[in-house]
Formats: sequence, C-alpha cells, structure tokens
Amino acid sequence: MTVELQGTSLIGSARGGRGGAAFHGVDPASGAALAPTYHSATADEIEQAAALAAAASADLARRSGAERAALLRAIAEELEAARADFERLVPLETALPVARAGGELTRTTTQLRLFADLVADGSWVDARIDHADPARQPLPKPDLRSLRRPLGPVVVFGASNFPLAFSVAGGDTASALAAGCAVIVKAHPAHPATSERAGLAIAAAVARCGFPDGTFSLLFDAGHEVGAALVRHRDVRAVAFTGSTAGGRALMDLAAARAQPIPVFAEMGSINPVFVLPAALAARGAAVAEQLHASVLQGVGQFCTSPGVLVVPAGADGDALRDALATRFAASAPGVMLTAGIARRHAQGAAELGARTGVAALVAPAQPDGCAQPALYEVDAAQFIADAALQEEVFGPTSLIVRARDAAEWQALIAHLHGQLTATVIADADDAAEAGPLVESLTGIAGRVLMNGVPTGVEVAAAMVHGGPYPASSDSRTTSVGTAAIERFARRVCYQNVPDALLPPALQEANPLQLWRLVDGQRRRD
Amino acid sequence: MTVELQGTSLIGSARGGRGGAAFHGVDPASGAALAPTYHSATADEIEQAAALAAAASADLARRSGAERAALLRAIAEELEAARADFERLVPLETALPVARAGGELTRTTTQLRLFADLVADGSWVDARIDHADPARQPLPKPDLRSLRRPLGPVVVFGASNFPLAFSVAGGDTASALAAGCAVIVKAHPAHPATSERAGLAIAAAVARCGFPDGTFSLLFDAGHEVGAALVRHRDVRAVAFTGSTAGGRALMDLAAARAQPIPVFAEMGSINPVFVLPAALAARGAAVAEQLHASVLQGVGQFCTSPGVLVVPAGADGDALRDALATRFAASAPGVMLTAGIARRHAQGAAELGARTGVAALVAPAQPDGCAQPALYEVDAAQFIADAALQEEVFGPTSLIVRARDAAEWQALIAHLHGQLTATVIADADDAAEAGPLVESLTGIAGRVLMNGVPTGVEVAAAMVHGGPYPASSDSRTTSVGTAAIERFARRVCYQNVPDALLPPALQEANPLQLWRLVDGQRRRD
Repeated sequence: MTVELQGTSLIGSARGGRGGAAFHGVDPASGAALAPTYHSATADEIEQAAALAAAASADLARRSGAERAALLRAIAEELEAARADFERLVPLETALPVARAGGELTRTTTQLRLFADLVADGSWVDARIDHADPARQPLPKPDLRSLRRPLGPVVVFGASNFPLAFSVAGGDTASALAAGCAVIVKAHPAHPATSERAGLAIAAAVARCGFPDGTFSLLFDAGHEVGAALVRHRDVRAVAFTGSTAGGRALMDLAAARAQPIPVFAEMGSINPVFVLPAALAARGAAVAEQLHASVLQGVGQFCTSPGVLVVPAGADGDALRDALATRFAASAPGVMLTAGIARRHAQGAAELGARTGVAALVAPAQPDGCAQPALYEVDAAQFIADAALQEEVFGPTSLIVRARDAAEWQALIAHLHGQLTATVIADADDAAEAGPLVESLTGIAGRVLMNGVPTGVEVAAAMVHGGPYPASSDSRTTSVGTAAIERFARRVCYQNVPDALLPPALQEANPLQLWRLVDGQRRRD
Repeated sequence: MTVELQGTSLIGSARGGRGGAAFHGVDPASGAALAPTYHSATADEIEQAAALAAAASADLARRSGAERAALLRAIAEELEAARADFERLVPLETALPVARAGGELTRTTTQLRLFADLVADGSWVDARIDHADPARQPLPKPDLRSLRRPLGPVVVFGASNFPLAFSVAGGDTASALAAGCAVIVKAHPAHPATSERAGLAIAAAVARCGFPDGTFSLLFDAGHEVGAALVRHRDVRAVAFTGSTAGGRALMDLAAARAQPIPVFAEMGSINPVFVLPAALAARGAAVAEQLHASVLQGVGQFCTSPGVLVVPAGADGDALRDALATRFAASAPGVMLTAGIARRHAQGAAELGARTGVAALVAPAQPDGCAQPALYEVDAAQFIADAALQEEVFGPTSLIVRARDAAEWQALIAHLHGQLTATVIADADDAAEAGPLVESLTGIAGRVLMNGVPTGVEVAAAMVHGGPYPASSDSRTTSVGTAAIERFARRVCYQNVPDALLPPALQEANPLQLWRLVDGQRRRD
C-alpha cells in the first residue's frame, strides 16, 4: 500500500502546514536531496499537538489493556502493509541495505506485538492489595490498593541509526502507548520520508481502533527548536531519546530546568568494552578476531552497542590477536554512513583518537566523504586510564585495542571506565577463576554483561536491559528495550478505602482481569 | 542502654573530629540550647565517609538477602534497646510528646523489619529469565537473565518532622540498606542527639553483623554545606530527601548539574486537598468537621500529608461545615513547633495567605513565638484557580477552605492543582455519581487517593504510595514509604549467555533461593 508523502507534520489526524523551516531527506550514497520537501512544525503546531495529547490523556488512561493491545497490533499490521514502502525508503534515506530494512521492520512489528501481549495480559501494572484490618491496635489498618497508571504525554525522539526500530514506531513509542500515554514523536531529520510513512501507519491504526485524536502526533524539525520546545512544554510528562551523549544531556538539562521537572529517558553513548581472556585467546584467537571484527563493522559501526574498546592481554597471544584484527580491518571496504555529518564526525573522532599520547595507529586509513573506512588503534591500559578522552565514543567502525597485563589491570580499567550499555567477556572454562570476578565487577558499570558473544544485537525480551550508568543512559534504573521499558512511562497510584465499584478493574476484589497481584504479601492470580 | 553522646559525626565505625562548625540542639519549648555541642563534618570527613561507602559497595552488593535482613533486624533491636533514650531525647529536641516518640520508634522498627522480610524473601529483585533458542531463525536467541542490583552509595537527608521514622534510621535508610546500598546520612540539625543515638544503634548493628565499615556513616551539618558536598560527590549514586519543596529542588538542581547526574528522590510539599461531597456533608457534617479539624491539627500540622485545602460545597450545608470548622479552630490551643524557624515560617505563611485577594480570614490568631495557633481561611474556587500563590504549602496547623459550586468546578480545581501526595474524597453512597469521576481525576494529580478518611497517617505497606507528581515529589514514579521504596535504589542488570556457575543465585537455573521469577513469560517460583 504505497501512499503519497506530503512533507508535513501529523497533528493527530490532521496535517500540519508548510510554515516552518524547510529541509530535505538526503541520499547518503549520492548526496542528492530527496523529495518531498519537509517542513518543520511551527510553534502553533507544537501547541496543537501538545493540547491534543493532553486532552487525550484521561481517555487513554481509562482504556483497557485489551484496547491498547489492539492498537499496538493494528500499528504492526499497518506497518507490515507498508513493507514495500519501507524497503524502498529506508535504503534511500539511510544507505542501509534493503535486507536490514526488512529485518528491522520485522523487529519493529515483533516489538509492538510483544508490548501488545504484555498489556493484554495486564499483570505489568503490578497491582498490590493490602486488606484492611479494622481491629488492629493501636490504629485500624486501612484498605490499600495500588497499580501503575500512565504518566501522560510522552515526547519520543527518533534515532538516526535505527530508522524503524528506534524511531517513529520504535520501542519508545510502543512502550509509551502500551503504558497508556499519548505520544508526540519528533522525527529524526535524516529519514523524514521513512518517518512520515511510519507516522501514517500509526495514525491509520489510531483511527481504525477508535482511539482519541491526540494519541499520536509526528512533528518534523529541521534543527533542534521543535524538540526543545516539546521538552519544555508544560503538558509533556516524559521524554525518550536515543542518540549521542551531547544530545541526550542537552535534553536532560532542559527537562531538569523546567518549573516542573520531568524525566528524560536517554539512551546515549557507550564504548562497550570487550575483555578477551588468556585461555580463550590461546584456544581460539583467530575465531575471536573474526567475531570482533564483524561486530565492530556491523551496520558500518552505527550501533549503540558497537565494541569501541577491546581489552587484549599483553604478550604474544595478544600480539597475534592484534595483528589478526589489524589485517582484517585493513582489508575491509568502506561503508556509506547514515549521513554526511555522521561520516565527518567519525573521521574526526578516529583522527583525534590516533593523535592522543601513547596511541598507536594500527589501521588509520583516509576517510572518504560520506563513508567510513574501518580504523583500529592500540594503547596500553595505564595510558588508557590516564587519558579520559580515550573513552569518547567514536560512532562508526573504529575500535581501540587496550593491552592489559593481568587481572589487577582489568580491575583498574573497570574502576576507571564510565557507565556502559554493555560489557563483554570472552572466556573459556580455563579462564573461570578470572572470569567470575570480572563479570561481577562489570555488572557494577554496565547494563548488560555478556559472555562469549558480541554486544551488537539487542534482543527484545523481558529480561533485556538496554541502558546503564551515565553516560550510557540518563537513568540507569530503566531500559529502553524489552518489556521493562514500559515501566518508564507509568507511576504507581494508591487507592485507600475506595469502594470496589470505584476501583479500576485491576484492583477490584474479584480480580476480573485475572492478573498476577501481590495480595497481603502473597503473589497470586486467583 | 543509655550511651554518652559525643557530638561528632560517625565515619563508619570511627568518630569524626571537632573541626567543623559548632551548633546545638535546641529545646523548642524553652528555646534553651542542649548539650552536647555538635560539630559539622569537615571536607576531609566527607571524603572519608564517601571513600568508605564506595569501598564497601562491592561487598554489600554480594551480600545475600538473608544477611541484609539480619542487619535490618539488628538495627531494629539496637533501636529498641535505646527506647528510653529516644523517649527522652525526641521530646526534648522536638517538643513532640513522649507517646509520639514511642509510637514513631515502633513505626521505625516495624519498617526495618518489613524491609528485612522483603529482602529475606528476595523476590523483590524481579528476576527474569528468557532461555536461549539456538535454533531460532534468522538469528539464534541468547540466554538472557536480569535482576535488580544496588545502585551504590546513597545519601539520606533526615527530615525535621519525623525524627525517627523519616530520619537517620527511617524509611530511606531502611530501603537503601535493604537494596544493598551503603548509606551516608546527613543529620537534620533540629534533632542532633536523636540522630546521634540512632546512628550509634545502626553502627552497632553493622559491627555486630560483620558488615563492612562503610555500610553506614552519619554526618552532622550546621547549615547546608555538608549536604551539598555529599550530593555533588562523585562516589554518591543517589539521594533521598524529605522536606520542603525549596530544599528538595535545590538538591535536584545540584544533582542534575553534576558531570554524572544522579537521581534525587525528594518527598516535598503538598497541600493534600480534601473534597467534601454534598450527601456526606448533609448526612454527617458535624462528624466531618471533627475529623478534618483533628487531621489538620495532628502533630501541630507538621505532617507532609496535612490537609491544607478543604474543598467545601457552596450553600447552606457548606456554610455550616465552615462555621463548625471555624469554631473548632478558634477553640484550639497553640502547639509548640519543631523549631523556632518552622514556627516563624508558619506565622508568615498564614499571614501571607490571609493577605491574598479574595481570601477571608475565618480564624487568624496572633502567632506566639515558637508556637503555632491553628488558623483557617476561606476563598472561592474561581479565586483559588486565579491565584497560584494559594497553592503554597503553609507547614503547620493552617488550612484554606475553598468553596466550589458543582462538579465542573471540582474538575476545574483539579486541572489547576499542582501534584499532590494525597487527595481525599469525603462521600456517601448518594454521592457515588460524582465521586467516581472525582476519584478518577484525582489519580491524575496525586500519589494516593483516599475516601472517607484523612490523609495524615501513612501506612507502611506493599501497596502504599507516598509520592506524587512534582512538586509533591521529585520523581512521581517512586514512593518513599512502603516496600516499593526499595526500587529507588536498584537498577536492572542483564546477564547474557553467562554460565550458571557465574550467575548470582537469584538467576541460577535451579532457583536455589526459591524466588518468584518471570521465566519465559511465566510467573513461577519452582
């Protein structure tokens, strides 16, 4: 179902105008501007979208889990119906291959359906009931019941690097809608057509399911003004963002300075250290080199979880791994990056890394315009610890080998490392004595600790954590991927001595929704 | 077991020196300075306490739920052993009656034991397991397991108005220790001896249970410098605070401006509106007057949940309730407040309230030094909505009657009200048609909605929410009372493909701790 794209914002079911600053999508492979022309939302349109979202909030809070599930499934269907559009638009706007576009669409619809299942079940509201005890001394005990309810309007910033799964209809939107929040998406300017197409799919689903007009809006923004205005808007209750540390921190600062501060859930930068242990290295160094090389280069290194630091033992086996990696990096082809700006920043970041004291350039090729040529550097652990600049994320297929002598030096590195989305340990059975303490220490700095895998690839599951201590994320207590992501957009409300008839069904005595609940301290669903 | 108080900070198991600014506790009834002299922590002592807490964190994270439960129970025992001390010190330093001191101590030890039970059970870590599926297409599914682990060192600010239950050994400390975090308490200067005595009880329990030295420290502070330095300290991972909106916001701003921002869980101001509905008013106006008067005056109005706004119907029944309240307020005795400064601010706040346009002074007595004489004002709903200053909390036994004509005016009030800790509906069966929408709307602005009770009195229970949208709290997604308070101090960590032997027991396949876990989407404990 191909639809004509108009280049204007979606204000609920209405279209915005062409009054705001104009911009174009760009084909990163050719540098050519793409049709149609896009128009930033105006101040009036921002007000309209916010007012619609606020007006829809009471209705959305009342909707049952079954209704919210139906909306999420309808969005998945509408997106699926646009598969041909996405397989054309995503490669055009992002230079990502068509197979990636298709796979990412499947990930996106799977994610929507996972949240649909979650809210259809309904137990995520964590209903708790403590029955009254009028006879208790010295004071009677009241009847207390609580559950999670939606925060209210959420602003979602689309990410550049996952034009579907972390963008307009991505995990932030899915989890906020699942929680019962209205969503206003600020489209990423690097893929406006993909954004508009996804926004139309959501708007169609909203209309089809009879949800209120303000359930969803999509605002375009040539720069940062629309996004900033949304974060400052009095009716907005939370913000979700995936992108750079600088971008996320700017939103955190805006939100913290509001008269009424609101939470910003920003998933930001990470260098995702990988620790290669001696026995694994000795047993399968060549395979490790192949695996790490592939992970660094995946998607032209444009993953939040791309391994930017490879901690490799000092000594001959480590030298061999370094040389094998260097050989692979040197033989790799350049890749077109998402935007010319991202390619410039990669080239600059790689050059700056190579210029730091004590850093050896193993593979430091020229960087063609718009592209990234994989680059590899090396430094010893002591110097890495001495120079915090070496922890700056270089977004793209560039990595830094850090040579460490022993377990004490690993622990010193961990004590020095900033917060991370992931940390990986490559270890064999003979490494167990060292792997245990390493895993334990890494849980102190990372949201996810892996063994014998690569951090790229973030499973959408109940147990997933895609987050971590700052600067990996703005709030280490949350995740932006997996079902626990819904908890970001809800707050607990307690009802005290409220009669059954006035309680939401999730808290009524008969448990009509058959939820798992915590009743007088016991977990039960009867 | 009476012990001699020294007037110095507790830096782990060691005592601080007398190098910092000196101050005294004060008997609010007489204004007399109390012995001993107290000494603010010095910059060096702050560093020592933070370094000890950071050094203890890895050990604390490894401790089992059973060990943490034993510590919490030992603290409760040590506090109980000091009951005679608290029944002497609390009234002396705060002018609260001895029965309140005893009751609050019991609340404090009950709270500690509730968190002990919670962590002994262990299911609060919300362990989740998604098993691997190596055969999945297009990519194998990894084994993912996640649970909550402690954030790291937490700074707790003692509150003035609950010298035991929201102070050194109060809910914030109990929930942070339960989560496995080291705690540094900044003592409230209004009850230093009570704080020192409670701190000694905790320190004794820490030593008795073999917990590391940095598990707990207690720092004194004549002003705000020690607290500010702690919030800024690089090793601190979270802050808990109960107090004024201005105080809480200052900490939020400090924490947000850090190089690495940290969460501040501040429970702040609230005016706790009470809506009296017509049928209930007609049926039992006199009883409602008695109930509300008692709630406003409880503890000299020094409760976060004291009802500062009473929404009363226009018309004759409402006039009668107003008059009955006014008679009761006018006949009430003054009460000594916690500090001379709090009494001054109460007098000033009541005077400013009475000076606002459209506000009638029903009972506006002179305010004697150090005391609060209950005061009552009246305004109509339209004027309340027009003047945001009328939403300023007046901490003490002062309340504002707001006269509202109908349900539309209630909804207009709710749309205008800031975030609240509580909102109360007084309604009979004949009010049901109006009570339903009112309760639903109030859940949008309050953490706890009550019917036919008074908001003062906050039950410590699994279902409790003591929090609410800003400015009631800094983070509406959390509570500072009840077992869910522990979630503030933990973050989820995911283990991917980590062998069973290297997993924490909560995530091991055999479920050795017999926790309730979410396994492949099913809630189970086998």
